[in-house]
Amino acid sequence: MKSETEIKVRGYHLDFYGHVNNARYLEFLEEGRWQFLEDHVDLAEWRQRGWSFLVVNININYRHPATMGDILVIETALSRIGKHSAVIHQHITMKGRPIDVVDADITFVIGEGDKALRLEGPIRVKLERLMNQP
Amino acid sequence: MKSETEIKVRGYHLDFYGHVNNARYLEFLEEGRWQFLEDHVDLAEWRQRGWSFLVVNININYRHPATMGDILVIETALSRIGKHSAVIHQHITMKGRPIDVVDADITFVIGEGDKALRLEGPIRVKLERLMNQP
Amino acid sequence: MKSETEIKVRGYHLDFYGHVNNARYLEFLEEGRWQFLEDHVDLAEWRQRGWSFLVVNININYRHPATMGDILVIETALSRIGKHSAVIHQHITMKGRPIDVVDADITFVIGEGDKALRLEGPIRVKLERLMNQP
Amino acid sequence: MKSETEIKVRGYHLDFYGHVNNARYLEFLEEGRWQFLEDHVDLAEWRQRGWSFLVVNININYRHPATMGDILVIETALSRIGKHSAVIHQHITMKGRPIDVVDADITFVIGEGDKALRLEGPIRVKLERLMNQP
Repeated sequence: MKSETEIKVRGYHLDFYGHVNNARYLEFLEEGRWQFLEDHVDLAEWRQRGWSFLVVNININYRHPATMGDILVIETALSRIGKHSAVIHQHITMKGRPIDVVDADITFVIGEGDKALRLEGPIRVKLERLMNQP
Repeated sequence: MKSETEIKVRGYHLDFYGHVNNARYLEFLEEGRWQFLEDHVDLAEWRQRGWSFLVVNININYRHPATMGDILVIETALSRIGKHSAVIHQHITMKGRPIDVVDADITFVIGEGDKALRLEGPIRVKLERLMNQP
Repeated sequence: MKSETEIKVRGYHLDFYGHVNNARYLEFLEEGRWQFLEDHVDLAEWRQRGWSFLVVNININYRHPATMGDILVIETALSRIGKHSAVIHQHITMKGRPIDVVDADITFVIGEGDKALRLEGPIRVKLERLMNQP
Repeated sequence: MKSETEIKVRGYHLDFYGHVNNARYLEFLEEGRWQFLEDHVDLAEWRQRGWSFLVVNININYRHPATMGDILVIETALSRIGKHSAVIHQHITMKGRPIDVVDADITFVIGEGDKALRLEGPIRVKLERLMNQP
């Protein structure tokens, strides 16, 4: 399961260097993840159970600058499930051009109240379905 | 009563034109207003009473562009109290230079639950004190 | 001539109050204006002539809060042409619901190098066409 | 050599969860790095030589949420110099409280025109001085 989101780069996304700013990419990635969750997760059920996605690490490579008018494609997929945390992989390319702009691994835990859940039982089943289904 | 806040312009504040972006100034102004409230208002008491400041209009003039390394000074003061709304005036200049960068009137109401309060009685007294004291 | 842009409200658009932040709306409006320019203006020609749109005033009414998951529709149109400046009117509503979220008048001048052009001759013809054509 | 920057968390820094948003921390870190460069680097000389700092990777741990009114302290120091890239380590804590909020490694190269410089010769000397001096 994968989601794709398109964002066109505008003047307010750029910084001093005339390129999309480092911090702004994290908003683009968050946009991609909301799209992914909306496409594939029953968020109402998660909310009812009191589960939330908490990002604990972001490891992001900036490979090629993007500028005004570029159309970016953000691909988002679940890539790994551990005992306590899982990883979403995201990849930003230029639309229609084989240029890697950004790739990132987003490590998250599932919070319930104050604690992070072990990724086992029904929650693991849900995550595995997210990862494996075509 | 007036508050002054300084912000140094950094690379991530700029946009396509190499100037501080229009939207970013609204964050600078919000920073100035939090400073003003912190300096002069008993926010804990307001919170306890369930009062909140709700911005209903911003009228902002962009007079001179600011860029990398400029130090901006934001002045914030309450300038007018009406029956239902009041106005905070904010003025951004270059530190140590007589250059008007931005000025803005921020019209707000005081919300309590779902409704806006009439600005009379104890709340008016508080606002008038905010406006008139030196 | 009018443009419409849709934006879905995400977690990173919200602030302390759980509503879309005041400053963020200015990014939404800028997004709408880029869309409008792209739809109706020959930006390459403007760039070649060295003309740029410079915002000198924004007057924005915040009428109804927007929150997580709301789909906003931004309408953008040129509404008035003066001797030295012109006005773009923008209106944000909830998609499919008759709720006014934000409306704003954006006053701009056309810059050429260091000076603002008088809106006469060929530039006025272009602007009038932008305003009047269906 | 180390720099310290303080930022007070305001309403516009928060998101849906009432915490400082993931992307916003990257602006806080960028603020810290500009401070560091300003404190310790002759930026005018670097500009004259045509050298620029280009971030190629950010690895950031989100350890503890920060919210309204928290005062964050950002520590910034150069931590490692490789053959082609170097690493700035940044650490955000709560002012006066032993709470780790965020830590991050920022890997950068030195660009000159279109290419990344090897970190040898005079540029390496400058970087080593940045890292080692007390």
